[in-house]
Amino acid sequence: MSNPSTSSSSSTPAAGGASDVGNHSSAAVETFDAVDVIRTKRDRGVLSAAQIDWVIDAYTRGAVAEEQMSALAMAIFLNGMDRSEISRWTAAMIASGERMDFSSLSRPTSDKHSTGGVGDKITLPLAPLVAAYGVAVPQLSGRGLGHTGGTLDKLESIPGWRAGLSNNAMLQQLENVGAVICAAGSGLAPADKKLYALRDVTSTVEAIPLIASSIMSKKIAEGTGSLVLDVKVGSGAFMKSAADARELARTMVDLGTDAGVTTVALLTDMSTPLGLTAGNAIEVQESIDVLAGGGPADVVELTVALAREMLHAAGRTGVDPAQGLQDGSAMDVWRRMIRAQGGDPNAALPVARESEVVRADTSGVLTRLDALAVGVAAWRLGAGRARKEDPVQAGAGVVLHAKPGDHVRAGDPLMTLHTDTPERFARATEALKGAWSVQDDAAYEPMPIVIDRIA
Amino acid sequence: MSNPSTSSSSSTPAAGGASDVGNHSSAAVETFDAVDVIRTKRDRGVLSAAQIDWVIDAYTRGAVAEEQMSALAMAIFLNGMDRSEISRWTAAMIASGERMDFSSLSRPTSDKHSTGGVGDKITLPLAPLVAAYGVAVPQLSGRGLGHTGGTLDKLESIPGWRAGLSNNAMLQQLENVGAVICAAGSGLAPADKKLYALRDVTSTVEAIPLIASSIMSKKIAEGTGSLVLDVKVGSGAFMKSAADARELARTMVDLGTDAGVTTVALLTDMSTPLGLTAGNAIEVQESIDVLAGGGPADVVELTVALAREMLHAAGRTGVDPAQGLQDGSAMDVWRRMIRAQGGDPNAALPVARESEVVRADTSGVLTRLDALAVGVAAWRLGAGRARKEDPVQAGAGVVLHAKPGDHVRAGDPLMTLHTDTPERFARATEALKGAWSVQDDAAYEPMPIVIDRIA
Repeated sequence: MSNPSTSSSSSTPAAGGASDVGNHSSAAVETFDAVDVIRTKRDRGVLSAAQIDWVIDAYTRGAVAEEQMSALAMAIFLNGMDRSEISRWTAAMIASGERMDFSSLSRPTSDKHSTGGVGDKITLPLAPLVAAYGVAVPQLSGRGLGHTGGTLDKLESIPGWRAGLSNNAMLQQLENVGAVICAAGSGLAPADKKLYALRDVTSTVEAIPLIASSIMSKKIAEGTGSLVLDVKVGSGAFMKSAADARELARTMVDLGTDAGVTTVALLTDMSTPLGLTAGNAIEVQESIDVLAGGGPADVVELTVALAREMLHAAGRTGVDPAQGLQDGSAMDVWRRMIRAQGGDPNAALPVARESEVVRADTSGVLTRLDALAVGVAAWRLGAGRARKEDPVQAGAGVVLHAKPGDHVRAGDPLMTLHTDTPERFARATEALKGAWSVQDDAAYEPMPIVIDRIA
Repeated sequence: MSNPSTSSSSSTPAAGGASDVGNHSSAAVETFDAVDVIRTKRDRGVLSAAQIDWVIDAYTRGAVAEEQMSALAMAIFLNGMDRSEISRWTAAMIASGERMDFSSLSRPTSDKHSTGGVGDKITLPLAPLVAAYGVAVPQLSGRGLGHTGGTLDKLESIPGWRAGLSNNAMLQQLENVGAVICAAGSGLAPADKKLYALRDVTSTVEAIPLIASSIMSKKIAEGTGSLVLDVKVGSGAFMKSAADARELARTMVDLGTDAGVTTVALLTDMSTPLGLTAGNAIEVQESIDVLAGGGPADVVELTVALAREMLHAAGRTGVDPAQGLQDGSAMDVWRRMIRAQGGDPNAALPVARESEVVRADTSGVLTRLDALAVGVAAWRLGAGRARKEDPVQAGAGVVLHAKPGDHVRAGDPLMTLHTDTPERFARATEALKGAWSVQDDAAYEPMPIVIDRIA
């Protein structure tokens, strides 16, 4: 299944990109000096395709040192890359590892990527929902770091469920069940893995060319035929401004298109948490509520909007994905998907040992509930990790009792904090200081979930 | 003599700077996160004094990683530092190591630093000349790397002469002879040593704040009372434009002044080599010619101009240093200086085994003889090194037979190339392609050696 050097022509739209990358990685590689490559970008020049191919390959092999790549990353951060550079940079990162190939599947493939937010459990109901309409969803996910949760962390709160699958097991499950949510193997875009760890310690994370190429190299290498991007904007998102989010979305859509992957992006609101939960098991429960036809309106709305885009991108038109949540077909795929990865969909989910209620101090309309503050509180309660080797608590997190637009009365519970380790309440509560506004008779204008669509 | 933590008040003008640094290094050091410090400069902020102190100290200790410092260096390269930041950065590099103290000497001290050029042997006649007027010259020098020669490499062509001296031996020689040219000990500004090696492989060398702080941290730590900077401008110099050279000179003069060291800079021409030699032993011979009252006019002119500045900065006014070259007093100090470091001033200097003459192909006025090309040719002949562990050839280099302004005839020798390894002639000759212009009846306007003075 992994077939990095001979990606063959296939029926998926990704085939064009695949053979480009194959040709490019097997060609003789010209040799450069890292100092010259860094100088080119430092002096606002455009890196040549050969320079990019060389520097990514040499960095992956260790021939370009970490301190050289970090200087280059900072030069890229400050001086940017043009579309052709970003496209080649992405292709070179894909070429650094294996490339998956779903062309043997009987159904088209579509995947979703979210840039990360608070309470963003959308992948959980979305993957089975799309699969229920005959489109295979190969969702390679990550664990959380910092205040945004990780899809795998959430699913691991289901007793027995495991994130690791061999490539063959993944292909089997896609054929038989239609949806897989699993950990990305280490073979996909190893250059990105190494570069991401470096950017994390050198303040070079928030550069749009580097973010876009990091996300898209993994998604393209993963071999999906089409891709829908959920680019979050707001306090709880990586991109705080709509302009930055739009630029990131446009860059990623261009990269997907250049690689032959049908790619669409939705800009969605992350100023307040999605749904009423931010944590692990509590988000799984909320996702099950949505799959059962219930759940919070915003989670349902975004799930259906993304499902519609994925189905459309995969060529499955004329269906209404809202139906799949009502008629039990998405729930059916969910249960088979969980079972296929060793999980028990009927098992009781873990519950945190301790809880504490946070109450409104005034009466009025809740006009603001800050996503970042809630994310940090959930993280501090044990739902997330500070270092990648830390464990997470399955039951920890924040359950909201009100969302912006709701009327609250002084003394009403606003949210409940959950943790196994009550000494964490103090710092979580601290994160929530000033996190919401209650106004008397406020004319509250709700923000739409989907702000824009970029195709 | 080395006295990093308690630099006492002394009669040298550097005392003020010394106690500032002492206080600063003994104060409790606040702790930061390297990622935050990098982000500050990345986002065009001003680094606080505490951030600078912490990052330089932590980098020296290894607590800030090479890849973090290189990202910071690139951010500084692209976003700059203001005067207060550069001053603090320099002070922090000084505080990373020992600081020498010449206050026990019976004479004032003055030192010179050149930013490096082709045929720049000026230190050799200059140090003994200034010492002949009662001003001690503690000249800590380096070895060459790339196309600019190293003062120590040149002196090491004198049989028996050694560059390494203990601090005590240096102090003794300053008292007894008045001039020392020796290798800087590893105790001076170790942060700079580490940072310089990093900048070299990460394309972050040519940043004025980093160049200025690198040079000045070593010179201030060295403990000289006054300092004259020879900032070269032209093809053979680090700074190709007069504007850049002027900015570098101004930055360094400010740093010296801030640290209590009387500092003056001359901007001098480096579009063509200084004198008629570029190499090691051949430059020593030319220096001896100057000390004997002869030698090329440009070398004499620049030696005397710099000597005048050094004497003036050290408070020795009303003397004419041109005299010291004529009356043998500078030569006398030279001979004692060479002998004090184990050298035999009467020994014959090494001569290269092979030579090849380069001839003019047309007749006319030599209007241009490119310094960089001659420097690269000398380097390729074996006078310089590509890596710092390489040896140099004592006899290798280029001897010029004509300088800009001279009339030449087709077939006349323009220069002679010298090396022990004749296979080097081809690449040296290649470096000289297009290196000179001969024009018929050209109205040649000679460039002054000293272009500007910045105090």
